[in-house]
Amino acid sequence: MSEVPPTAAPDPGHVRAKSVVVVNTGDGKGKSTAAFGLVLRASARGWKIAVVQFLKSGKWHVGEEEAARRLGVEWWSIGEGFTWDSPDLSEDEAVAKEAWGHARALIAAGEHRLVVLDEVTYPMNWGWIEGGDVVDSIRSRPERVNVVATGRDAPEALVDAADTVTDMVNVKHAFDRGVRALRGIDY
Amino acid sequence: MSEVPPTAAPDPGHVRAKSVVVVNTGDGKGKSTAAFGLVLRASARGWKIAVVQFLKSGKWHVGEEEAARRLGVEWWSIGEGFTWDSPDLSEDEAVAKEAWGHARALIAAGEHRLVVLDEVTYPMNWGWIEGGDVVDSIRSRPERVNVVATGRDAPEALVDAADTVTDMVNVKHAFDRGVRALRGIDY
Repeated sequence: MSEVPPTAAPDPGHVRAKSVVVVNTGDGKGKSTAAFGLVLRASARGWKIAVVQFLKSGKWHVGEEEAARRLGVEWWSIGEGFTWDSPDLSEDEAVAKEAWGHARALIAAGEHRLVVLDEVTYPMNWGWIEGGDVVDSIRSRPERVNVVATGRDAPEALVDAADTVTDMVNVKHAFDRGVRALRGIDY
Repeated sequence: MSEVPPTAAPDPGHVRAKSVVVVNTGDGKGKSTAAFGLVLRASARGWKIAVVQFLKSGKWHVGEEEAARRLGVEWWSIGEGFTWDSPDLSEDEAVAKEAWGHARALIAAGEHRLVVLDEVTYPMNWGWIEGGDVVDSIRSRPERVNVVATGRDAPEALVDAADTVTDMVNVKHAFDRGVRALRGIDY
């Protein structure tokens, strides 16, 4: 990340933020992977970190989850035996709502320096969770809580609330060219 | 990385690659960070991994370096006391050449399942290392060695040699908006 030189000396042209909001969006690879890279970095600083997965497809992140847990990261993903009360909700929707309830409490508690909302844009865009509530929670977070949100098609209000937004554009993908996903690289 | 579902069952439409080449390029954040995310994932698979830094600005990655070393990753970056023989080279250029010599040997040896060439595009574009040699080494690598290359303006020959290329586009960056780089997030 050599684009932004860290400045140890006081820099009158820039303010020192207590925390930032980072959004990784776009159709390319690297959104969640870059978020996990930030987890690795923050972990080395001794930060208390939580990752919340918003989609039920938790198995795809099993590699990151194992390595992150070894680094002391708290990892929230819904278990296999999840049951939900309302017959009006799909299981995926129930998982997303549950994840958001957990994430909102984590952010508000202010005990973690980094909270990763992995793939949160999907339930926001599908109307499963209230986008305005997500953005409000992020904007009113305790000042030392950094938030990283990932997923395609980040809603405009989330982009507005963010300090740093990267659009990860798929130039070329092995899968599109007939190469199967590779264990260790793709999952 | 939910875009590419892992397929456990045989999939006649896709070939199983022994390894892939991933390029993270563009002016946005996340190129190196996503590479370190892949390191985290591959580490959880028990892979032998090496990271080679091509720019001397090693201190910016100290967070990743420490966490990665804790995970058993071999990390190559030039030390502070580096001296070089030729008066015709700048120190930066000498570092890049040294890094490439090391990386080329690592790739050819085939002992690592993942070799990360961090910020390799810069010395390629500046003519400090021979781009054709980099691409040849990658193309003729042992079949189980995965390579991830990062940096802006990936040369066309490198993109051609890659299986997966993501262009990380800067939509908005805290630093451009007067917010100083934040320890734990930016470095």
